[in-house]
Amino acid sequence: MRARDLLVDFPTVSLDAPVAEAARLLAEQDLPGLIVAGDDGLPVTILPGTQVLRLAVPGYCLDDPALARVVDEAHADAFLRALDGRTVREALPERPRELPVTDPDATVLEVAALMARTRSPLAAIVDEGRLLGAVTLQVLLERVLAA
Amino acid sequence: MRARDLLVDFPTVSLDAPVAEAARLLAEQDLPGLIVAGDDGLPVTILPGTQVLRLAVPGYCLDDPALARVVDEAHADAFLRALDGRTVREALPERPRELPVTDPDATVLEVAALMARTRSPLAAIVDEGRLLGAVTLQVLLERVLAA
Repeated sequence: MRARDLLVDFPTVSLDAPVAEAARLLAEQDLPGLIVAGDDGLPVTILPGTQVLRLAVPGYCLDDPALARVVDEAHADAFLRALDGRTVREALPERPRELPVTDPDATVLEVAALMARTRSPLAAIVDEGRLLGAVTLQVLLERVLAA
Repeated sequence: MRARDLLVDFPTVSLDAPVAEAARLLAEQDLPGLIVAGDDGLPVTILPGTQVLRLAVPGYCLDDPALARVVDEAHADAFLRALDGRTVREALPERPRELPVTDPDATVLEVAALMARTRSPLAAIVDEGRLLGAVTLQVLLERVLAA
């Protein structure tokens, strides 16, 4: 079993998409994360769902969740709207991370190791400069357990 | 909106459950992660899906994914079976991590900050020494975007 056998179509978001749109895509399609693609269609970064959330949470709350408690309920409910058109590009962390990207020939163990290392529930599959799709943790586990 | 308004029932696994059973639960119920409960029913640890996978991937592959490439396809396919009854307790990392656990009064922003900090797509909700259930990233985003 190779990555190509586990491949699923996967939507991408552009760097200039609003963070709220990225969050909506994640929620509506129940995706485990997002592939952020550059102008060439290739993955610039791959964000697990929790890191998409991270784009949307004010920094002071990330540093100290106790500070989130002093924000009243109405403002807390509206934290995503408060982003007001901020783009994915603006919200990305500066520190680059290891990308869960591999090729269609990768074995299921390689893909599993890559997901575990990068804490990403999806891996992008790229071949000859083209994004073919993704392997999700869900599909990988289902197929490995059925094998 | 408070954690109690976003609460969903969530299965737990015991420390003595085999890792393969934990992986099966994750895959079959399409869960974002697992709550590992102690004898008192309270969360001992909460594992995002990728960290459940981490329990199952041989350490040498985690350290250097290139080494996974030398494992032949048949053995790669069987990596989960190779665990052979290893329990969750035996596979847990020694270093304790911040647990995504909060109370039913937490605001949606607190829960979001907690998930983003701990990189966990689920947070356990505990009240008066009892596990009430979980808030998932999916439900949180849906409700925040609909608010």
